[in-house]
Amino acid sequence: MTTLAGHTRTRARLREEIERELGEIFSAYSTTAQAYGSEFTHLWALAAEHVLGGKLVRPVLMVETYDALVEASAHPQGFESTATAAPGEQPIDRATIIRLAAAIELLHFSFLLHDDVIDGDLFRRGRRNLIGALLDDSNRRIDAGHPSEGARSTEQVALHWAHTGGILMGDLLLATTHQVFARAELPHAVRLQLLDLLEHTIIESIVGEQLDVGLSDGLIAPDLGTVLTMSAHKTATYTFELPMRAAAILARAPQHLERALTSAGAHLGLAFQLQDDLISTFGDPAVHGKDAFSDLREGKQTAIISYARMTSAWPSIEADFGDPALTAAAGERMRTLLTECGAERFVRGLVEEQAAALYEVLAGTATAHPIPPGARRVLLAFAAELEERRA
Amino acid sequence: MTTLAGHTRTRARLREEIERELGEIFSAYSTTAQAYGSEFTHLWALAAEHVLGGKLVRPVLMVETYDALVEASAHPQGFESTATAAPGEQPIDRATIIRLAAAIELLHFSFLLHDDVIDGDLFRRGRRNLIGALLDDSNRRIDAGHPSEGARSTEQVALHWAHTGGILMGDLLLATTHQVFARAELPHAVRLQLLDLLEHTIIESIVGEQLDVGLSDGLIAPDLGTVLTMSAHKTATYTFELPMRAAAILARAPQHLERALTSAGAHLGLAFQLQDDLISTFGDPAVHGKDAFSDLREGKQTAIISYARMTSAWPSIEADFGDPALTAAAGERMRTLLTECGAERFVRGLVEEQAAALYEVLAGTATAHPIPPGARRVLLAFAAELEERRA
Repeated sequence: MTTLAGHTRTRARLREEIERELGEIFSAYSTTAQAYGSEFTHLWALAAEHVLGGKLVRPVLMVETYDALVEASAHPQGFESTATAAPGEQPIDRATIIRLAAAIELLHFSFLLHDDVIDGDLFRRGRRNLIGALLDDSNRRIDAGHPSEGARSTEQVALHWAHTGGILMGDLLLATTHQVFARAELPHAVRLQLLDLLEHTIIESIVGEQLDVGLSDGLIAPDLGTVLTMSAHKTATYTFELPMRAAAILARAPQHLERALTSAGAHLGLAFQLQDDLISTFGDPAVHGKDAFSDLREGKQTAIISYARMTSAWPSIEADFGDPALTAAAGERMRTLLTECGAERFVRGLVEEQAAALYEVLAGTATAHPIPPGARRVLLAFAAELEERRA
Repeated sequence: MTTLAGHTRTRARLREEIERELGEIFSAYSTTAQAYGSEFTHLWALAAEHVLGGKLVRPVLMVETYDALVEASAHPQGFESTATAAPGEQPIDRATIIRLAAAIELLHFSFLLHDDVIDGDLFRRGRRNLIGALLDDSNRRIDAGHPSEGARSTEQVALHWAHTGGILMGDLLLATTHQVFARAELPHAVRLQLLDLLEHTIIESIVGEQLDVGLSDGLIAPDLGTVLTMSAHKTATYTFELPMRAAAILARAPQHLERALTSAGAHLGLAFQLQDDLISTFGDPAVHGKDAFSDLREGKQTAIISYARMTSAWPSIEADFGDPALTAAAGERMRTLLTECGAERFVRGLVEEQAAALYEVLAGTATAHPIPPGARRVLLAFAAELEERRA
């Protein structure tokens, strides 16, 4: 059993490995880009700058789960791998695992880019996102007297250029993710399973994005079921299910184990999303780093709001909900109403339920084939993070 | 040798085959979509409606070229296939060829969708495009009193929903194209060559799109070289090079032949693009179907304009160029100036040069290994269409 300090060292090394792989992918595309001129080269350079240096939550989750499953399969009491290796079949190369993990990070960034274009966001975690950086660039060039024609304002032109870059780089990274999956040096049957998983992930994430926009724009009725479905699909699928199922497929884990990991991931994902909603509505801005009341000001359709809508407090809340000029006093008042009407308690209860369901999957009481200890530790680290956020 | 009527019949049958395959792809995704609710299902239904019923220029080009190359390789005087089939290797199934051809059409539609989002276009060839159809839908729903919240106008909300659908469906079809390529039942080495080609195609098309936007927005200097590069990359690569090289790879044609086809495709592609610019600037609106003077009104950076910019007529042309309120009289005057300054003659000369270069490749005088007759016929049909447009 590894010590906590040993585990932290191992994770830091793993992050370095994935970071190096991402660096190599960007370096290769940047070299290709140079043949196509400075604008395209610059776009790749900006993308590399924004992708590198991240926390790599998803790729780390994939590789740690994979390692734990492989270790378990080698153990005499571990699961029996479903692999019936074809004659001459090679064991999976470490480089292939790391490359697939890196591709999962590229998919994440591709989704973020298109999400930011759709939402018109120019910042992410307090700094300029890629689109914001492109906007600053083009504003500098326009100020420097670059020719600009037509009837649109220079502001519109700069924003158009920035959004175009966001759409196109999102496309390039979506394509790159598929290229990595399609080229992975794996038995073809395993590659096909990964491609199925990739397709399923993309479909669910896009369903979630579409629901999110429809809910925000008031085109889709914000009932609790729809809001929870949106929360589960938009980020939980690609953040938890994708890395864990990819690990299970690569480790040739038996299907019941892949299902248990999928289920654990779904509970974790939804719990994190609901907890995020609680934090940005009721938490301290100094801690969560977002603007206070930003969800209430933007009129974001969360489970908290869906519950409040069903209570008698709603008319008082609705008056200020989604008001771009929301004052701090009105925000405080709304927050109190959301607590008093039971919405806060209700959503805390939902998080509790998801956590309990996660622990049940981890306990393995419902199945004869529990999740192996190493993989359980990986999940527990996330559960611990969730508990810390709930404190 | 097939007769012209026989060839027309064959092509009609081929179109039906590809259309059926596209129908099956959409039907499978629509079934998956139903589990995710009405909005997502509707998005797929709209996409199917807009993709099906097209001319299928690109997939037809791929399959006809493939068939011609396979026929030539079987012929005793034909090229020697580079294929050294591995033991037990299967010949390529017809279904695989048709499926890949259908995927090329999906890639085309994915590019069109993101291009329309970027350009803010709601029409294509005189009818509502997918984004326009989504806009009409959401306007109907807003009129029907669907809840709408926040500070934005209903018009903005409807447009936001429509653009979101365009971005997301473009992503889904880009992903689907990759899925088809990655799953194609082919020897892995052949699949990797196709994946290389797909990557190259996407990169060039995106470079072309980025240049087009930068030129239109006045952020990139519109010199002739840049405008010609944009024209070659934005559509010619995926319209001609992709189908013809895919055919060559699948038919295991020798490299020199793949290069000759690539070269022929590049000349054809650029000639078509330049001819399109000539037609929309100097042609009869009743024939080309676009608004008269739309390129001049929008300030589109074409090779015609780049040439005019270098002449003494430019100050007189520039005054009205890109004026959204351009009158017919001013348009006529600008057209006359563009002819008199030599821009029209210059671009007609460029088309002539590309056509001559194409015929040289077809004649095969520069190589000991000419393009086989069947593939030459396929290219000549396009050349004939080009000549007709020039008349």
